[in-house]
Amino acid sequence: MSIGSTPSQRLAELGFTLPAAPRPVASYVPAVLSGNLLFISGQIPIVEGKVTMTGPMPAAGSIEQAAAAARQCALNALAVAASELGTIDRIRRVVRVGCFVASEPHFGNQPKVANGASDLMLAVFGEAGKHARAAVGSSALPLNVTVEVEFLFEVE
Amino acid sequence: MSIGSTPSQRLAELGFTLPAAPRPVASYVPAVLSGNLLFISGQIPIVEGKVTMTGPMPAAGSIEQAAAAARQCALNALAVAASELGTIDRIRRVVRVGCFVASEPHFGNQPKVANGASDLMLAVFGEAGKHARAAVGSSALPLNVTVEVEFLFEVE
Amino acid sequence: MSIGSTPSQRLAELGFTLPAAPRPVASYVPAVLSGNLLFISGQIPIVEGKVTMTGPMPAAGSIEQAAAAARQCALNALAVAASELGTIDRIRRVVRVGCFVASEPHFGNQPKVANGASDLMLAVFGEAGKHARAAVGSSALPLNVTVEVEFLFEVE
Repeated sequence: MSIGSTPSQRLAELGFTLPAAPRPVASYVPAVLSGNLLFISGQIPIVEGKVTMTGPMPAAGSIEQAAAAARQCALNALAVAASELGTIDRIRRVVRVGCFVASEPHFGNQPKVANGASDLMLAVFGEAGKHARAAVGSSALPLNVTVEVEFLFEVE
Repeated sequence: MSIGSTPSQRLAELGFTLPAAPRPVASYVPAVLSGNLLFISGQIPIVEGKVTMTGPMPAAGSIEQAAAAARQCALNALAVAASELGTIDRIRRVVRVGCFVASEPHFGNQPKVANGASDLMLAVFGEAGKHARAAVGSSALPLNVTVEVEFLFEVE
Repeated sequence: MSIGSTPSQRLAELGFTLPAAPRPVASYVPAVLSGNLLFISGQIPIVEGKVTMTGPMPAAGSIEQAAAAARQCALNALAVAASELGTIDRIRRVVRVGCFVASEPHFGNQPKVANGASDLMLAVFGEAGKHARAAVGSSALPLNVTVEVEFLFEVE
């Protein structure tokens, strides 16, 4: 992370504004803190209540579009974390990212899609944004979205 | 959680009896305790050794039936926890639920299915039952079951 | 674990040599240590840079071949852990294994495939190798591999 810049400042410098924290589609909560581990529920690409990308890859659109949808999931996760912690500056490390990409058989570019989420974490948190990751295909996702991403953060 | 009622009492009040803890289908164990985190293996809808629902949604049956299968997974997980801890009353918090729903392309109601497991946790543990969750579709699951659910509990 | 044998000795006795730790396909890291939990990124069956098994089951090959691919994922995970910790002998417990098997609809033998990874953990770590597990089907995986496995270790 660059000297003199907090993750929240960096996010602003990148031109991002945190959305309102998305509310779960069902009977669970957006995040749970256990010890210093913050578990974020699976996030989908929703902006102001509207799903931004649906359907399986590759039919749903370009890799770039799907990566942007994954980045939106990451933004939503940061919004959830900010709502839970007061500020994302209390995040000490991005520990794990789990990325599910709606995939037709033979689509093998889940990593490139997941990079949309991973790259944002690196841009915002620098070294502390580097995480373990699993990226896999899914036959179908909630509300038919193209990508769902869950996050595990270590917090102060 | 209502005053004067423990999770195990609440489970009984809801009319549920814990089944015998299911034995893993393969070379792993039902649960591992690391620090105060109890990881429960993926549970499938089995009652007395018999799978209760197979096939992908929506062809497999109604959402209500699939949610009941997810609830059975949750009951089996509580049975595993009770077997591991002596009693589910040592569970301090339901931290995370991971739900996989066998899904044909275009089935987008995984959250409603997963609610079968989530709602039981809320009914049994009250506020402490609220958890982070990822619910996704799977092209096929072990023994062709309709749903598999894994759990992470924080224990005393 | 047998008396007088460390996990690294046991691995050698079993005839395995740890490969070079695979490098991530994308913008994340192979492993993250948070507290005493070591999260290993999803591993795929790669040997010396070459994918060893592709396509969904059962078309991709026999259960034995797929289990061998899962075992390769486990070897790669141990290589990552050794690279991170200096030696796999610092692993105190295998906590969780998450196994994704590329599956056509109706393939229900994910547990037998995942056993390739699980059995290696038991052979190398003995009692400490017993883990919680989720094994599920995936419509497609990165680089079209047949299996992807992620690991969570507790370390000293």
